[in-house]
Amino acid sequence: SVPPGVLPLCHRLPAWGRAARQPPGLPLAVCRAFSNNKILVELDESSGVATMKFKSPPVNSLSLDFLTEFCISLEKLENNRACRGVIVTSAVPKIFSSGLDITEMCGKSTEHYAEFWRAVQEMWLRLYGSNMVTVAAVNGSSPAGGCLIALSCDYRIMVENPKFSIGLNEAQLGIVAPFWFKDTFVNVVGHRVAERSLQLGSLHPAPEAHKFGLVDELVPEEKLQEKAAAVMAQWLALPDHARQLTKSMMRKAVLDRLVAHREEDVQNFISFISKESIQKSLRMYMEMLKKKKG
Amino acid sequence: SVPPGVLPLCHRLPAWGRAARQPPGLPLAVCRAFSNNKILVELDESSGVATMKFKSPPVNSLSLDFLTEFCISLEKLENNRACRGVIVTSAVPKIFSSGLDITEMCGKSTEHYAEFWRAVQEMWLRLYGSNMVTVAAVNGSSPAGGCLIALSCDYRIMVENPKFSIGLNEAQLGIVAPFWFKDTFVNVVGHRVAERSLQLGSLHPAPEAHKFGLVDELVPEEKLQEKAAAVMAQWLALPDHARQLTKSMMRKAVLDRLVAHREEDVQNFISFISKESIQKSLRMYMEMLKKKKG
Amino acid sequence: SVPPGVLPLCHRLPAWGRAARQPPGLPLAVCRAFSNNKILVELDESSGVATMKFKSPPVNSLSLDFLTEFCISLEKLENNRACRGVIVTSAVPKIFSSGLDITEMCGKSTEHYAEFWRAVQEMWLRLYGSNMVTVAAVNGSSPAGGCLIALSCDYRIMVENPKFSIGLNEAQLGIVAPFWFKDTFVNVVGHRVAERSLQLGSLHPAPEAHKFGLVDELVPEEKLQEKAAAVMAQWLALPDHARQLTKSMMRKAVLDRLVAHREEDVQNFISFISKESIQKSLRMYMEMLKKKKG
Repeated sequence: SVPPGVLPLCHRLPAWGRAARQPPGLPLAVCRAFSNNKILVELDESSGVATMKFKSPPVNSLSLDFLTEFCISLEKLENNRACRGVIVTSAVPKIFSSGLDITEMCGKSTEHYAEFWRAVQEMWLRLYGSNMVTVAAVNGSSPAGGCLIALSCDYRIMVENPKFSIGLNEAQLGIVAPFWFKDTFVNVVGHRVAERSLQLGSLHPAPEAHKFGLVDELVPEEKLQEKAAAVMAQWLALPDHARQLTKSMMRKAVLDRLVAHREEDVQNFISFISKESIQKSLRMYMEMLKKKKG
Repeated sequence: SVPPGVLPLCHRLPAWGRAARQPPGLPLAVCRAFSNNKILVELDESSGVATMKFKSPPVNSLSLDFLTEFCISLEKLENNRACRGVIVTSAVPKIFSSGLDITEMCGKSTEHYAEFWRAVQEMWLRLYGSNMVTVAAVNGSSPAGGCLIALSCDYRIMVENPKFSIGLNEAQLGIVAPFWFKDTFVNVVGHRVAERSLQLGSLHPAPEAHKFGLVDELVPEEKLQEKAAAVMAQWLALPDHARQLTKSMMRKAVLDRLVAHREEDVQNFISFISKESIQKSLRMYMEMLKKKKG
Repeated sequence: SVPPGVLPLCHRLPAWGRAARQPPGLPLAVCRAFSNNKILVELDESSGVATMKFKSPPVNSLSLDFLTEFCISLEKLENNRACRGVIVTSAVPKIFSSGLDITEMCGKSTEHYAEFWRAVQEMWLRLYGSNMVTVAAVNGSSPAGGCLIALSCDYRIMVENPKFSIGLNEAQLGIVAPFWFKDTFVNVVGHRVAERSLQLGSLHPAPEAHKFGLVDELVPEEKLQEKAAAVMAQWLALPDHARQLTKSMMRKAVLDRLVAHREEDVQNFISFISKESIQKSLRMYMEMLKKKKG
């Protein structure tokens, strides 16, 4: 359902630093309620706040299709002057997002790995560099790439349920978080916490995650959307232009680092993921997941 | 009252890394008690500790005259071998400093903006890079540039009154804190707290500021000067040379960054502040302040 | 007892980033129990965990001989496939390590200073860049270079006795911690805590050190080794390859900085330590230590 060429277009229009040449936006009618396959987007024009709800059961895994839809949805909102903020949350019970879809990284062609990895990069560049206020309403577990989405927002609210956990647990799977996952993590929790958590591949229960600042706030599940709206209103009280320039000043160094090494990062991913030892690890992990379900 | 050419002289003699070629100092008699228009400087030669008291009612705003006096006073103390530490505080009730004087940034010439901004840079370069021990005794509210002065000292003590607040609230005014304000802030409170606080333009009541390390200590107002003297004595117990080299090692990267981009930063300021939208924001803000008073 | 040429060999084989070309390892028999003069090394082949116990009374000071032994021991373990983790601790009561041996820095030749400083660098490069899991079991005071050893490990457990203190107290002695000591410290406790602690040359009692993250955990003395083994087991549960790459990603920037400026750093040390004022400070400090003992 995604027209070919859309993602390349995204590539030519990086979200960060675009304030000055923002296009006039799509017709409002298009944005008021556009539903896709994997993400439900609703825009409340009175408040200027959109909600992006992940609805890709069973676990909202970040497949190539999901990532493409995510980028397109975010770009539409970014270009829509009626939209100033986005709340990112899940429509699937107990899970925010399980992270990158392992089936996209297993037994596929080099070309597929490259296309997939560019989509992962694109998602992060758009979200971490978004001019809109971004609030993660984390209503379920959020490992690996799911955690990255939360880390890339301006503010993180999580349901206080200790059964829900969050973290960059790549090391547990025998793989390594890319440097820009790491940079984003360090910007939120500092170097020491990141070093320990990444090496151990820790998944932190919500209360622990809150304790060291991985999430900003904990709330009961029934208060989550209300709290997210209140936080959003607080951030939208600021003049957009000053807030956007400030955000860009804080995040530019880390965004620029990936932009400068983007193709190199794709090649690194391909050569790493193509190793037989890594493929074997991932196959074993998928077997384990299947047994769990069965 | 400021002789022409003094500020350019300052420019040629950056304070940081000057230990080796420190001039012999002005005659002591000059420094023992030199009062200016806007800052009262007292040096206790027995302890080697000077106090700089801001006395520019109503709100100790950082006008070009104030900044020039600040730089000259600091340079005199820096070059005076009898002086090893400075306590910075306010003689005006309830306010430490309200930050940059908006009238200097409104409806003036490009040349005036350039001169003003160079003075702001100079103030920070001298204070953040000072070889002396610098303690901020924050006895009132301290927004924007006032907060920068506190952040640039070695240690911050604040009166525990929750009515006094501190923070880099530029975004609230529709403007953006310069990168070196941001760098100084990040060095004190870390990346995450800085990102959130700068985007929201937060002014933190003293207890909150203490909680995340923006200030090091809270005391009752009547204990402030006593506490500042005690902290100063603790820092002066260290050998000057080792302490100065250590301080320089910690702050050099951030100081060098402005030094390397100083003229560019002036030009950025001028082009930003000259925008009609920014001028309008500032005029509205000044109107609001006037109404508050009236 | 150290064959000439061993240290130069170390130089050509930096530990970090060596995973891919790791040599096959020395015969196991050599490593199973090799005791030296100053460090006792024991390897438990069933768990893959080695213990390095400092036994150089009275205070485990880091002499050239100690450092050389430390590097050789670490390299042997690094190259031994049966060894995956090292616990670093002391066999001398009440002291972990007193740091760099001042007698090596006093009244010696330029050549000696250079050789000594290269050994200090080598120790840190190997330990901070180690592919093994490294746990510091700090069972006594740990000033200056002793603190650096602890900071360079992956995890720090300290005996909860408040009489034991830890910190980079160089400024107290009139000297300055090298930039890579500082970088390592900042990576653990953040910029602000490091700035204050380094300028004051603070030695923090164990509970205070724990409070701001200089050590990760406090335990009663009798539980220390048990706890260290439990922490080690937790870290060894991760696949080595993913953990090593993650560790390298976190530490590479700081390691590379010394590697890039290594010879410059040696020359800086020599010119600093050769100053008569510094020599005098160190002699006075040694006199003070002698009087304390007597």
